[in-house]
Amino acid sequence: MSFALTLPDGSKKEFDVAVSVADLASSISTSLAKNAVAGKVDGEIKPLDFQLDADHEVAILTNKDAEGLSVLRATVAFVLEALVKDKYPEIKLGQAEVSEDGFFIETDKEDQIKVTELPDLEKALQKAIKNGEAIEHVQVAKSELAEAFKDDPYKSELLAKEGDVVDAYKLGDFVDFGFSALLPNTGKIKKFKLLSVAGAYWKGKSSNPMLQRIFGTAFFKEADLEADLKRRAEIKERDHRTIGRDLDLFFVDPKVGAGLPYWMPKGATIRRIIERYIVDKEVAAGYQHVYTPVLMNLDAYKTSGHWDHYREDMFPPMDMGEGEMLELRPMNCPSHIQIYKHHIRSYRELPIRIAELGMMHRYEKSGALSGLQRVREMTLNDGHTFVALDQVQEEFARTLQIIMDVYHDFDINDYYFRLSYRDPKNTDKYFANDEMWERSQSMLKAAMDDMGLDYVEAEGEAAFYGPKLDIQTKTALGNDETMSTIQLDFMLPERFELSYIGADGEEHRPVMIHRGIVGTMERFIAYLTEIYKGAFPTWLAPVQAEIIPVNLDAHSDYAKKVRDELVAKGFRAEIDFRNEKLGYKIRESQTQKVPYTLVLGDDEMNAGTVNVRPYGTEEQNSESLAEFMDKLSKDVASYSRED
Amino acid sequence: MSFALTLPDGSKKEFDVAVSVADLASSISTSLAKNAVAGKVDGEIKPLDFQLDADHEVAILTNKDAEGLSVLRATVAFVLEALVKDKYPEIKLGQAEVSEDGFFIETDKEDQIKVTELPDLEKALQKAIKNGEAIEHVQVAKSELAEAFKDDPYKSELLAKEGDVVDAYKLGDFVDFGFSALLPNTGKIKKFKLLSVAGAYWKGKSSNPMLQRIFGTAFFKEADLEADLKRRAEIKERDHRTIGRDLDLFFVDPKVGAGLPYWMPKGATIRRIIERYIVDKEVAAGYQHVYTPVLMNLDAYKTSGHWDHYREDMFPPMDMGEGEMLELRPMNCPSHIQIYKHHIRSYRELPIRIAELGMMHRYEKSGALSGLQRVREMTLNDGHTFVALDQVQEEFARTLQIIMDVYHDFDINDYYFRLSYRDPKNTDKYFANDEMWERSQSMLKAAMDDMGLDYVEAEGEAAFYGPKLDIQTKTALGNDETMSTIQLDFMLPERFELSYIGADGEEHRPVMIHRGIVGTMERFIAYLTEIYKGAFPTWLAPVQAEIIPVNLDAHSDYAKKVRDELVAKGFRAEIDFRNEKLGYKIRESQTQKVPYTLVLGDDEMNAGTVNVRPYGTEEQNSESLAEFMDKLSKDVASYSRED
Repeated sequence: MSFALTLPDGSKKEFDVAVSVADLASSISTSLAKNAVAGKVDGEIKPLDFQLDADHEVAILTNKDAEGLSVLRATVAFVLEALVKDKYPEIKLGQAEVSEDGFFIETDKEDQIKVTELPDLEKALQKAIKNGEAIEHVQVAKSELAEAFKDDPYKSELLAKEGDVVDAYKLGDFVDFGFSALLPNTGKIKKFKLLSVAGAYWKGKSSNPMLQRIFGTAFFKEADLEADLKRRAEIKERDHRTIGRDLDLFFVDPKVGAGLPYWMPKGATIRRIIERYIVDKEVAAGYQHVYTPVLMNLDAYKTSGHWDHYREDMFPPMDMGEGEMLELRPMNCPSHIQIYKHHIRSYRELPIRIAELGMMHRYEKSGALSGLQRVREMTLNDGHTFVALDQVQEEFARTLQIIMDVYHDFDINDYYFRLSYRDPKNTDKYFANDEMWERSQSMLKAAMDDMGLDYVEAEGEAAFYGPKLDIQTKTALGNDETMSTIQLDFMLPERFELSYIGADGEEHRPVMIHRGIVGTMERFIAYLTEIYKGAFPTWLAPVQAEIIPVNLDAHSDYAKKVRDELVAKGFRAEIDFRNEKLGYKIRESQTQKVPYTLVLGDDEMNAGTVNVRPYGTEEQNSESLAEFMDKLSKDVASYSRED
Repeated sequence: MSFALTLPDGSKKEFDVAVSVADLASSISTSLAKNAVAGKVDGEIKPLDFQLDADHEVAILTNKDAEGLSVLRATVAFVLEALVKDKYPEIKLGQAEVSEDGFFIETDKEDQIKVTELPDLEKALQKAIKNGEAIEHVQVAKSELAEAFKDDPYKSELLAKEGDVVDAYKLGDFVDFGFSALLPNTGKIKKFKLLSVAGAYWKGKSSNPMLQRIFGTAFFKEADLEADLKRRAEIKERDHRTIGRDLDLFFVDPKVGAGLPYWMPKGATIRRIIERYIVDKEVAAGYQHVYTPVLMNLDAYKTSGHWDHYREDMFPPMDMGEGEMLELRPMNCPSHIQIYKHHIRSYRELPIRIAELGMMHRYEKSGALSGLQRVREMTLNDGHTFVALDQVQEEFARTLQIIMDVYHDFDINDYYFRLSYRDPKNTDKYFANDEMWERSQSMLKAAMDDMGLDYVEAEGEAAFYGPKLDIQTKTALGNDETMSTIQLDFMLPERFELSYIGADGEEHRPVMIHRGIVGTMERFIAYLTEIYKGAFPTWLAPVQAEIIPVNLDAHSDYAKKVRDELVAKGFRAEIDFRNEKLGYKIRESQTQKVPYTLVLGDDEMNAGTVNVRPYGTEEQNSESLAEFMDKLSKDVASYSRED
């Protein structure tokens, strides 16, 4: 027997007898042997004891590799399973999984594990590391494992998918399977942290039992762990779900409807201001705002193609009797097409711009729902422009300019443009009209260039029906998200037989442009909450001025007078009448991120002034109420921006 | 044999032999005999030849009685049936019905009867009246009639419900049944008018064939007919469906969804202004506006009782899988209860006022749908106030004051108040809490009295859950309609276990007040369209100024300048650029009921003025643009009212 192992640098090592991954590492260098955590054999991760006895491509994974990190995390998850099983012999275990930034294990017992138990579990883990216990890699008959897991329905379900002989790992009496590789000894675990617990349905199905997940993360180096914990704290500070709860902006209660947010008065105020802002902006830009029903005959979605290609994301149709099937709309386009078709249109009217705050419903699995970010009911700042082909460039530029203006007003700066074309090598995959594609793609590009904007070009990323521009942002959780979009559509005008009468007196097909400026109210406000960290600028803040009387008996009347004058001028002000200490109230106003806190005592009352503390500063200014209102007006008119 | 007939004045007439109704009339006076059209025997309408041979209470119906009018109209319907059957032997006939203001017959043939045929049918009717043909009242075996109608499925279906011997009427060869009384001769018909034709499903079910209804009316006196036709013309002029089409405010297309209105840009503009107006009004009055989902878990409607008692008016639930059933909400109350329950509430916070422009869905039979008046999707200006029992009177008065203010702004003057109490003789039919009923009913009454308002008291008209005030208006079609309502509710707080912490530190149940100020957007705007006859006041008008350049070449630039200045100040102005004559454009602007038409020619351009023609006047004023804008501003700020 003789075989060659090809290393990542292309070099080959020949052997006559079988060697383990660990042996191979030792044969290369002692430092590699020391840092090795697993091997990658023909692309698959294998443990250090994996035997190599034929030609393979092999890489040694170390504590420097991302995949090395996932072996470490899998090992911590495995040891954690062993520890909870040891502590609670009756516990049932679900999946142990490694994710991009950590791991979790799933547990189930009558009295679920609580977050308060994590410190104890961490201590036990620490002890296991110190003791340096061996983790044994074994191959076991499936039947033997089935016996071991006979009281655990979850592991039994997972085991059913394995072959007759199963790769398993042992730590003392504890055995588990389903890992591609683990470290050979608990002593090899370095830095870890248990983070949180949360309920999750088995396999994500809400008809299944709810298990308790224990989340954690692990690193080889302390500095890496610390950096990660800091990043997590920052995310948490920005997470719109946390802020939404703390500032009482919204809530979602799966008992009354998963993915169906309730906007509390403060969140609703922000939303109302944004809705009015965007509608006014669009009306001034020549959009005709409409209201169209959230329900439509299912046939319309058959015509549009949504029912054929998009059904899984749609709600179940409702049988209204008398042969009528109604569907909650997943998109507003067919509704706006009805508006367009209601009249005969002339070339003189183009571009026709129809817009709406259009409520839509999309089916998402309950496991995918998240705060305002991923919901089942949403209201889109939607618009559709109907143009002649030669108007595409001007209308595209115009639309993009509105988006840029809006971003400026909201102080949105962290985004990039992605222009998506059809795949030039696969043009038959797309709506068939070469002239439309070629002309419109070059018009989009020309418009971007004229505006001097940088953009990524993505060939083959266009929709079937036309090229598009997406504007991408990032959420606090780090997900890439499309905030705004301008999409050309050659298909729907064809399917719904749209036309306009040209200067030649003949019927022509318009091009349809789908566009969203701020996207859905839900996602946009989630995004703003995150970039502002809840400190909404004055023009959006649900409470612009929190008024605190120094002494409730002495200064409440003056506080009311100030509040009434502010409210009469259309500002949002409230008084903290609670029986709490002054310092507490001032801190509370800061916690609530109110732009201005007004403390009113004898000095203010006698001088007819207000003591103004702007949010996030140590400033205290004594001003006349007129001066303060002037400042508020300027804040609102300028969208709280300096430029 | 001897029997007595008791007349309406209480007097009795004794007879030894049977007499007909006509005989009885003759025995009283010749004029009564001449004017008699039928009899009312023990409360039932009977024909003149009906034989009286036992003790009865009898009244002679004449051409002065409303019931006499219905006999006349039934006779015209019957004769009309005979005429169309004579003209189209293959025609099938459905129901012949008399309504409050006329009659209709139902016909069905391959090529349906058209409105253009009505003049010919009127001529034939006129001839029948002139000829004075006998209408014979006969009693026929059901089997004999079944044979006569064997080719007519509708009459056969109606016949199936009759007894073995059927009261029928004959005119020549034609026979029909189902009338309580007809006149004995076509010559007795006086004045009539055939009005319109319209399709209607047999028995109102859309799975049945569509029949053609021919509508008409009839009177004994020419003056009555003329007054009625005038009234009909006025209704038509006010009908929001006609105006909505002519002014392009909205449309409903049963092909994409029955009862689901599409608001065209102009209608949407009116709606948007009203929505903002009412939300601002409510926020200023201390309401906290929210947004809540249109969908809710079906269980909530089981708790609320809607599913048990209101299911027929609800949309079918949607099975979301995983055991979840979602329901389009028929009411917003359970949603606002979620908002209330989201926090622990203190007596110090009460009254808590939650409001929303809440979209709801109610199932209505397709036959009952009508324009914006009766729809399946609607947005209610909804609000719920949670109060302690002793706050009921003040909150009720406050709410009513808002309603009165709003009516004043919209110039709504034709309404009355109806205060509904529980039935004092049947208190066990109502939610059981005597103290709540007694105290709150007297508080409602006291509030009305304090405000000096007249009202109707309706004992036994309260809802199961509490007393209420309704404010009633009338639609153009003459239907009584509840525009605004304030309803107390003792039940839902109980069912949803609502509470607040009182000054005593204990939990207490609040009273819930449901209130609508302008009702649904759909119904309110239908109503406004009717009272304004489409001439919306300046603050609501979708176009406030229609600009007409005298000469497109010479004056378009000036027109644009004027328009841009108006739009920049937030006014709604548009230019008529069409290639039409000046006079036509001016008339068109009047037809569209635009408040101000601006005609711009050389004089205006050179002087920098505008020539202003206010709607509905012959006035023409030359004004500076600043003066005109000042007038517009005043119109808007004052809701176009003088006071």
